[in-house]
Amino acid sequence: MKKVLFATTALVFSAGIAAAEVSVGGDGRMGVVYNGSDWNFSSRIRVSFTASGTTDGGLEFGGSVRADQAIGATRGTEASVYISGAFGKLSMGDVVGAPEALFGDFYEVGYTDLDGRGGNDIGYLTADNGGNVDCQDLNPTTPTGVSACANSGPNLLYTGTFGAFSVAASMSDGKANALTVGGLGVPVSIGASTVTSLATSISTSVTQEYAIAGAYTFGNYTVGMGYEYANGRNGFGGSTDVDMISLAGVGQFGNTSVKGVIAHRGQDADVDWYGIGASSVFGATTVGGYVQYKKDNNALAGTDDDVTWYGIGAEYDLGGGASIKGGIADNDNSDTDPIADLGVTFSF
Amino acid sequence: MKKVLFATTALVFSAGIAAAEVSVGGDGRMGVVYNGSDWNFSSRIRVSFTASGTTDGGLEFGGSVRADQAIGATRGTEASVYISGAFGKLSMGDVVGAPEALFGDFYEVGYTDLDGRGGNDIGYLTADNGGNVDCQDLNPTTPTGVSACANSGPNLLYTGTFGAFSVAASMSDGKANALTVGGLGVPVSIGASTVTSLATSISTSVTQEYAIAGAYTFGNYTVGMGYEYANGRNGFGGSTDVDMISLAGVGQFGNTSVKGVIAHRGQDADVDWYGIGASSVFGATTVGGYVQYKKDNNALAGTDDDVTWYGIGAEYDLGGGASIKGGIADNDNSDTDPIADLGVTFSF
Amino acid sequence: MKKVLFATTALVFSAGIAAAEVSVGGDGRMGVVYNGSDWNFSSRIRVSFTASGTTDGGLEFGGSVRADQAIGATRGTEASVYISGAFGKLSMGDVVGAPEALFGDFYEVGYTDLDGRGGNDIGYLTADNGGNVDCQDLNPTTPTGVSACANSGPNLLYTGTFGAFSVAASMSDGKANALTVGGLGVPVSIGASTVTSLATSISTSVTQEYAIAGAYTFGNYTVGMGYEYANGRNGFGGSTDVDMISLAGVGQFGNTSVKGVIAHRGQDADVDWYGIGASSVFGATTVGGYVQYKKDNNALAGTDDDVTWYGIGAEYDLGGGASIKGGIADNDNSDTDPIADLGVTFSF
Repeated sequence: MKKVLFATTALVFSAGIAAAEVSVGGDGRMGVVYNGSDWNFSSRIRVSFTASGTTDGGLEFGGSVRADQAIGATRGTEASVYISGAFGKLSMGDVVGAPEALFGDFYEVGYTDLDGRGGNDIGYLTADNGGNVDCQDLNPTTPTGVSACANSGPNLLYTGTFGAFSVAASMSDGKANALTVGGLGVPVSIGASTVTSLATSISTSVTQEYAIAGAYTFGNYTVGMGYEYANGRNGFGGSTDVDMISLAGVGQFGNTSVKGVIAHRGQDADVDWYGIGASSVFGATTVGGYVQYKKDNNALAGTDDDVTWYGIGAEYDLGGGASIKGGIADNDNSDTDPIADLGVTFSF
Repeated sequence: MKKVLFATTALVFSAGIAAAEVSVGGDGRMGVVYNGSDWNFSSRIRVSFTASGTTDGGLEFGGSVRADQAIGATRGTEASVYISGAFGKLSMGDVVGAPEALFGDFYEVGYTDLDGRGGNDIGYLTADNGGNVDCQDLNPTTPTGVSACANSGPNLLYTGTFGAFSVAASMSDGKANALTVGGLGVPVSIGASTVTSLATSISTSVTQEYAIAGAYTFGNYTVGMGYEYANGRNGFGGSTDVDMISLAGVGQFGNTSVKGVIAHRGQDADVDWYGIGASSVFGATTVGGYVQYKKDNNALAGTDDDVTWYGIGAEYDLGGGASIKGGIADNDNSDTDPIADLGVTFSF
Repeated sequence: MKKVLFATTALVFSAGIAAAEVSVGGDGRMGVVYNGSDWNFSSRIRVSFTASGTTDGGLEFGGSVRADQAIGATRGTEASVYISGAFGKLSMGDVVGAPEALFGDFYEVGYTDLDGRGGNDIGYLTADNGGNVDCQDLNPTTPTGVSACANSGPNLLYTGTFGAFSVAASMSDGKANALTVGGLGVPVSIGASTVTSLATSISTSVTQEYAIAGAYTFGNYTVGMGYEYANGRNGFGGSTDVDMISLAGVGQFGNTSVKGVIAHRGQDADVDWYGIGASSVFGATTVGGYVQYKKDNNALAGTDDDVTWYGIGAEYDLGGGASIKGGIADNDNSDTDPIADLGVTFSF
């Protein structure tokens, strides 16, 4: 994501010099994955665009989008745009929630992220497009195969850093967007016609989310706290109120970075969450891993009420944007085997 | 849409110097929309590519495509290509009809175009991919949700300017294209297989459209006339013949631009259409609006037989490709509230 | 595909200078096609990205993807990545099989490839994503409209050239990939939720393919042989074992290039295949064509058991990346008419 094209933009009604940039980049990977029962090939290539500009008054603006998310990016459900200045940065689209914006996730294990046994993602409620409010799990009226109480997007995220303090706030609008194609995510042709929407009520209530987070940095250490609330609606009449409070700490000890998170989900849910992750750099080699423990006290939960999942991996930088990377991940459920991968990753 | 990459193209069998350009650009927006009952967030980002080249004989050629329309662009149902020279410009793909090519639409109100109450679009029959022949409205055999008698594309458009005269002509082929994926707009996986088409007859008749238009410019004024014909077929046996004659005038008075259109739809339809729009520039500020009145005498028409819709908006150029833009739009139907928006727009 | 952007990539943990390139290019075309009963317009535009880099140790890596295949490229079922060095080149993704990698296909007739009557493609078993194992034809349990026993991808391809000898080997993993979205090729919205997969078993057996090929070049002549095996599975319980041995020869005689292929499909199939193609260059003009004969002795085959298909075409280079190209193609089945096209092609 590093190709920058400088160019000028001539606006019809502007006397000033307008300039904006679009950079073209991407990433790729290839290798083998063990999914717990078979070895598979796995490869991909993605192209990404990063746009940016500056107003005459000094505000910065822009956005980013991947080629494979270009369709969703036109509805704000994938990709995002932003405007920023001394006040901080305001982003809209498929943005992360406030706590994730400040604390992120754990070290990504394996060249494919190996999230089949739990993964390195911290279970923020308002991650990305609201994917972590599990309607399937919490609400039996959700049809099989619909796993998340997603909001319809786009979401709003504010982040700001003032001296040693960082703050973030995020929210969704809780209503199906008037401009969102409602019934079908993609146009479907029927004969010579194309259908892009089924019956869509512009005032349908969907998942309402909001979150705040704050962090304080002193030397090589950062500590912070976040609060998230999601009024999950699954589009089939179900409602699931969940909130989550999380405490996070990050420290840099020599060439080792350590992150720890403790969280509790309440209201309709009752889940405790503990996780720790670390990564160390030795020259061109990086090793890292994580352990997460989730204790789910909710009556409607599934078979993995109490589960520990973990992963460990390593990577070797070949230079030029290429690395060799591999990992192994598992959880302590009785019926699953470890998953593992080994491959090369490319950054363009 | 202003990033230009100069590069050389080495053709295998060509001794000459080959050169072609691809420019990468795009646009973005973020803000809030009132849809008549709720406020919603709305954002998007789009990436666009513009390709151009010149033959040894001096003909120009090229095309443009957005990343989110890349799939349709491979079938000519989105995006377009062209070849041009002293004879004019010949375009094929998802092109507008002849009258729209010469007269365009009214000033776009609001940062999201606010077309939920009618919008600034003039009701040309052959706009874009034939979207304005309303099979739903005119033919009760069209299934619910299929709103347009679209032709299968691609369409052909010719435009030329000779002194004070501009002419345009457009047509569709009226047959499902042999190269068009027929049943499904996107590949669908069934097990390990991928289905990209259902039963497609290569000789199926689809909507046949053609249109001509001419304009004469004197000083700051342009007047013109267009005629369009569409033999709408909805893919379910229905047939709807509609034609439309339109008169248009555009004038520039100081810093104010005014456009007026009068049109009549005949044959299976019987609709009269009147519209006027204007925009004025005051330094970095532009204000504009439109009023359109449609009188529908067709027996099969819906509840908005006679309807007036209107919109007004303003924008302020922040420089660098960014603007603040907002607007409000409504119609005089008894059961709808005004819609409005306010946001920032970006041009890359 | 010739726009190269030089840029630097700063990796977090790398002390070295990282450099990678992404080039932006594409192609377009417009013209008319006769599909055997009607003339149709046909146009398209495609944007393509080519990424490449070099490791500190001198290995080259990269990949290529078209904008319209960006979604499939994230799962390895469209587009591909590679790493190469003195050992040869290892590619993964939507790669061709070993014989096609060495011998290719015949001259492409017409500006749209005119493959409706057979086409210039040699019938390799493992072409692209396994498309040539015809489950529809060989196995009556395959539902109508599902024409191929495709493997789930990605595939692996090795090619290497050592002096006068070229070798290639390719294979698929024969299992549904753990990272592949199984049920639906695209996300579908249900209410406010998005479904990206239906029930997917990560250990489902899909089409297993492997192939090897070798070629020897002396002066202007190349001769080679390939062997391919595909254990076709159609996702509905059907199994179809097919193998294919092919002999190929390519010669350059002055300004004329000639290619001939003899092949036999065995196991569950029993098909003989003979084909010859040629193209000649006269200044800016190229003419070419092919004849292929397929004798299908398989009991379950359709009406075209024995079929000859052929095509002839010409193109004129306009310079700058544009050409005029046309052709005609047909087979000797009693119920089909010739197809033809004429148009312009653009290379960006």
